Amino acid sequence: VDDRALLASVRAVIGDADIRDDCAVLPCGDRCLVLTTDMLHATTDFPDDMTDWQRGWMAAAVTLSDIASMGAEPVALLLAAGLDDPLRLEAITRGAHDCCARHGGRLVGGDIDRHDELTLVSTALGEVAPEHLVRRRGARLGDLVCVTGTPGRAMAGLEGWDVHRRALLEPEPRVAAGRALGRNGATAMMDLSDGLALSLYDLAEVNSCGFRLRGHLLPRPAEVPEPEATAFALYGGGDFELLFCLPPERFPVPGVDCTPIGAVTDEKGMVLLDGAPVERRGYEHRWSG
Amino acid sequence: VDDRALLASVRAVIGDADIRDDCAVLPCGDRCLVLTTDMLHATTDFPDDMTDWQRGWMAAAVTLSDIASMGAEPVALLLAAGLDDPLRLEAITRGAHDCCARHGGRLVGGDIDRHDELTLVSTALGEVAPEHLVRRRGARLGDLVCVTGTPGRAMAGLEGWDVHRRALLEPEPRVAAGRALGRNGATAMMDLSDGLALSLYDLAEVNSCGFRLRGHLLPRPAEVPEPEATAFALYGGGDFELLFCLPPERFPVPGVDCTPIGAVTDEKGMVLLDGAPVERRGYEHRWSG
Repeated sequence: VDDRALLASVRAVIGDADIRDDCAVLPCGDRCLVLTTDMLHATTDFPDDMTDWQRGWMAAAVTLSDIASMGAEPVALLLAAGLDDPLRLEAITRGAHDCCARHGGRLVGGDIDRHDELTLVSTALGEVAPEHLVRRRGARLGDLVCVTGTPGRAMAGLEGWDVHRRALLEPEPRVAAGRALGRNGATAMMDLSDGLALSLYDLAEVNSCGFRLRGHLLPRPAEVPEPEATAFALYGGGDFELLFCLPPERFPVPGVDCTPIGAVTDEKGMVLLDGAPVERRGYEHRWSG
Repeated sequence: VDDRALLASVRAVIGDADIRDDCAVLPCGDRCLVLTTDMLHATTDFPDDMTDWQRGWMAAAVTLSDIASMGAEPVALLLAAGLDDPLRLEAITRGAHDCCARHGGRLVGGDIDRHDELTLVSTALGEVAPEHLVRRRGARLGDLVCVTGTPGRAMAGLEGWDVHRRALLEPEPRVAAGRALGRNGATAMMDLSDGLALSLYDLAEVNSCGFRLRGHLLPRPAEVPEPEATAFALYGGGDFELLFCLPPERFPVPGVDCTPIGAVTDEKGMVLLDGAPVERRGYEHRWSG
């Protein structure tokens, strides 16, 4: 059983294809609201040497990244904290608050609870004009496929490359880039948290398309030798970058630091790097059940 | 250290008195949005004999109750589930979905994660016209203080009175009552989750007022002998009833099953039952730190 199979069972209950997107979309007058929640906890999400400020920052960043991937503007953030020690709350709250101060939205409330394992659940609400909303679905044949920043840095940081450690511990959600992409013609978008390869396969599936990537275009974490650099870029999780499709005539997008790595094809479900299939793997929860 | 002290430290960081209310309030065009999140988990919130459907129901009910206490209409619900066994997800999702189907809102998404201890965090978004929004603050001298339903039933259920077991396991959030109260002049409102006594003290503090209650008016759980019945009604937690203030000329409110139990006074911070101080205790998390 993997997360994607579980999501299918949820979809059967709630009867809504919207959960394929990074956020739920709700009409509100002449605007769209977008809403998302993410659970993080000690054993699977937080490296041991993180500070509590960084844990709070990351908890905010994961949902702000989801808001970014819809082309939306963050409005408000809630933080539910299950704490093994109540004295941790202040630094965690400060981290989440500071991430909002930098990237948008306002920490407006939350919940606190006693928990054996530190568990942080953040929820973000965003808004966007309907014509600037970007979903996972919408890619068109011939679009460029692009990424912001450099995928694989979080994994490089995890594997001991100190120059990438901060990218792992203090990820920057690409809120400004996401908003600019929504206003400048991005046709499909998601964030990279499960890694580039899995994200490309998800995007190919929802768009009934394929992708051909060029190896020499792929940004790779600096200082990491091959073949690790390419493996980290394709299969590493934990990056807060955006993956999106864009008509070639819209490139470049002013103010957005991104790299075209290939193009959308009609080869359904195929993700090829220099003609060879990319492995369908990355960061996935696996269940023993 | 108790939850109320911790909340004060959060308030120092996020600088907002709004967290005194059950929901954060956000303007959106000519409407108000209200947003709330609650964490529940196995050891402190779920009796062992609950079904997973009931756990999902309760997770939805806690945030829908917060929406109700603002006089608002639920719009959307998110459920983040930390699961020890992925096979539990479907029944939990169905419970949350069914609670929304009964009381309002739509389950639109969430997150799933591996967790040693079953942990459910629900987030609800609601909306309300600004003139119908009810906050904790707003009580006026001479208002009636009222409760919906019968406080203490959840505690009676927990203590073995089978007739109250369902009130404990399948609480009904008072969404329809909350909305009617917002439209019919309630001046201050909150839900009862920490028990009637603590809720009255919270309401007294935020309103700089007091309350005088009449013992013979207080609804008590049926079949429970005294003095337990009164103790459960005052100090039992886990009820999803509404506590509110209402100008006497607005009583009764059509369609709302509620009981006036006393009146607002100018005796700041004093909660008296037949002239004697009510103990300031109820359901509170206590931290060993």
